[in-house]
Amino acid sequence: MQKPSIPKGTRDFSPAEMMRRQYIFDTIRGVFRRYGFAPLETPSMENLSTLLGKYGDEGDKLLFKILNSGDYAAGLSDEQVRQASKISEKGLRYDLTVPFARYVVQHQGELTFPFKRYQMQPVWRADRPQKGRYREFYQCDVDVIGTRSLLCEVELVQIVRDVFAALGIRTVLKMNNRKILYGIAEAIGHADKMMDITVAIDKLDKIGLDNVKAELAGRGLEPEAIERLQPILQLSGDNDAKIAQLRSVLASSETGLKGIGEMETIFGYLKRLEVDQPVELDLSLARGLNYYTGAIFEVKALDYAIGSISGGGRYDDLTGIFGMPNVSGVGISFGADRIYDVMTGLSLFPEEVNHTTEALFVNLGAQEEAKALELLRGVRAAGIAAEIYPEAAKMKKQMEYANRRGIPFVAIVGSEELAAGVATLKDMRSGEQRRVPFVELAAAIRRPETAAE
Amino acid sequence: MQKPSIPKGTRDFSPAEMMRRQYIFDTIRGVFRRYGFAPLETPSMENLSTLLGKYGDEGDKLLFKILNSGDYAAGLSDEQVRQASKISEKGLRYDLTVPFARYVVQHQGELTFPFKRYQMQPVWRADRPQKGRYREFYQCDVDVIGTRSLLCEVELVQIVRDVFAALGIRTVLKMNNRKILYGIAEAIGHADKMMDITVAIDKLDKIGLDNVKAELAGRGLEPEAIERLQPILQLSGDNDAKIAQLRSVLASSETGLKGIGEMETIFGYLKRLEVDQPVELDLSLARGLNYYTGAIFEVKALDYAIGSISGGGRYDDLTGIFGMPNVSGVGISFGADRIYDVMTGLSLFPEEVNHTTEALFVNLGAQEEAKALELLRGVRAAGIAAEIYPEAAKMKKQMEYANRRGIPFVAIVGSEELAAGVATLKDMRSGEQRRVPFVELAAAIRRPETAAE
Repeated sequence: MQKPSIPKGTRDFSPAEMMRRQYIFDTIRGVFRRYGFAPLETPSMENLSTLLGKYGDEGDKLLFKILNSGDYAAGLSDEQVRQASKISEKGLRYDLTVPFARYVVQHQGELTFPFKRYQMQPVWRADRPQKGRYREFYQCDVDVIGTRSLLCEVELVQIVRDVFAALGIRTVLKMNNRKILYGIAEAIGHADKMMDITVAIDKLDKIGLDNVKAELAGRGLEPEAIERLQPILQLSGDNDAKIAQLRSVLASSETGLKGIGEMETIFGYLKRLEVDQPVELDLSLARGLNYYTGAIFEVKALDYAIGSISGGGRYDDLTGIFGMPNVSGVGISFGADRIYDVMTGLSLFPEEVNHTTEALFVNLGAQEEAKALELLRGVRAAGIAAEIYPEAAKMKKQMEYANRRGIPFVAIVGSEELAAGVATLKDMRSGEQRRVPFVELAAAIRRPETAAE
Repeated sequence: MQKPSIPKGTRDFSPAEMMRRQYIFDTIRGVFRRYGFAPLETPSMENLSTLLGKYGDEGDKLLFKILNSGDYAAGLSDEQVRQASKISEKGLRYDLTVPFARYVVQHQGELTFPFKRYQMQPVWRADRPQKGRYREFYQCDVDVIGTRSLLCEVELVQIVRDVFAALGIRTVLKMNNRKILYGIAEAIGHADKMMDITVAIDKLDKIGLDNVKAELAGRGLEPEAIERLQPILQLSGDNDAKIAQLRSVLASSETGLKGIGEMETIFGYLKRLEVDQPVELDLSLARGLNYYTGAIFEVKALDYAIGSISGGGRYDDLTGIFGMPNVSGVGISFGADRIYDVMTGLSLFPEEVNHTTEALFVNLGAQEEAKALELLRGVRAAGIAAEIYPEAAKMKKQMEYANRRGIPFVAIVGSEELAAGVATLKDMRSGEQRRVPFVELAAAIRRPETAAE
């Protein structure tokens, strides 16, 4: 018999991995909750009519489609089978944004706006699997919809700060604004070439000013337009300085000035609130440009080379695709897999995430077991994860079990201990053993350093 | 444009529902963790070769199959399309048990046995949707595999007790044993008719002794065999009494006596450990009979009429289907949807589950907002879920928002409050308002009754 396997691009998460993942999810969820965001879950399957056409042609191809249930082929003609709609009407969700938009439109009458929701669920993409790219992965999205207030952008920055401070990851938050990018294109007389210009700006660090100019010329910009772009390619200083320079360059673009005003407001709030999160205005940030309409966010880890670990922005027409126009929202998504990689790479997981059980009671046979079970019950009642080895196996085997599972404490209650009313508590990391009165066992496991000898 | 919808048999979970669901999941997870069970997650999709043939013919039909990605129909002949294996090689998991077995076999070299794991993930079944039956629903499974120790059964009873005690649901745990059922059939000379006999016993309450006897005759039992079954149909008393009566009836069946011994051992542990969970030996319990090999569990709510809310049992050959024989395990599954219905029906959810935000700061314009944001930050730092209304909207609108979202406290910082260094804190449930010094705000929200006036 062949050893069983799982589909390519999917993963099992072992207990060790799950402990770490749950730590990340719990941390993120805790911050979302503290900011008043409410949980939402949508079904794994959506109607294909909900999903198709929302992610571009490429996205449509990457949808996992589900066969209509029943013996679909039996009663259908060859022609019907060939028409995908006859054999598949449902697909697995591709992201959490489209289902969120669908939910808001479907339930608009029941919702209270502004609607603040978070959603942490897996999504599926039929991408070619490769290192770091999976066909099933979690997204952790937080959005507020139904207000244009820039306090929401400020709050998202605070959330980014709190999440990564809690996880111990040093980050820089890069921000840009779609309106500024449009303003730049408009100011040099090429409102139609916003994307070309942004892509070129993005390459500045890599290929240098002269090559960027050459590329812009190749994309159809005349020398005068490139000349007018020059100050923007050479913005310098902190965010305030960049904004001051932009303000003069974009003086002729109403949209551009609006974008600058938005960024000033956001940066002003962050300064007054003393939010200790490095935030950097970065004009090369082009994330989701054909989708976002205002602020754009992207978070990078400072001490670990990996793509962005979080990102998002403001959108003014998320629900328009489902017939509910002019609802503005802003959101950000945390990438659990990359955060996991950063934390593993930098050894940032706390020690308590390395084991599921704090204490193992050794099983030494009927009489000792009775006492161990009683003590075990008390330890668990104190909220400590604990267990007893289910069989009176050889001591060596039981100790090996504790070792392999990374259990930090082993409690031994043998005949001698029974007589003395104590347990021998072994610290598996230091190898030290000490005798602990039964009544102090839970406290000794919880705070070994302060427990009575 | 048509209002968007979701596939039949699937559900959106609103924030109000999610808060309640998370409360149930967190409670169950907390108990699983305290007993030393480790989390595991498997992919939503499994290879069809893993899933097919594991749930019977009916189960095979209820699998959701996923179309192979890419333009599957384009390059295939009609004949190939008709062969399901050419267009679908993956399916959505049907339960958590088969993926668990697959995982154990696939990773047997890395695992430490006994392996204690819990798994809380959705499963999918292409069942005809109806009230209380969904095509996507969560299962919460806890299993220990790799030991025959009956301490595991005892531990599962303790877990049942702790979960439902924490949730406030009064329950009875019904137990049976596959070996006893086999023993009964064997003792009356009809080892082949175990299922018929069990089904008949199950009807005793409903149709009465005489009708049961008639049914057994109809199923091919001769009068003498039915006569020998009579004492079993009339078992009375508590578990000890039932076991004593069974012991004499099943004296000739080695398997039956083994089953009795198992139950005696389990009941003995429960009594010595003073586990305050009503447990009842119920010979009519036939759950998963062609699958379990020892103890069988089923939990019923005492105060709410609904099917079983938890169930499980011991299996001796879960992994045999994947080529790893003779590994015994025992597990139990909690039905989140039914538990949700019981708790809603009996109003058992604690008050704090009814809202996601503890306190809303009213937004009264730039100057007041600045102070409110500062206070908000302090309240959040104290671990309290709080928010500010993102716009300086009319007071009435902001209060309505708090009301509709069920936010219990509204903090008002107007010009008068600014001057006095206090916030007006309104308890939205009682309507009472009081003035709280800025520094005491977090404490006042957390414990309104004890906060300084």
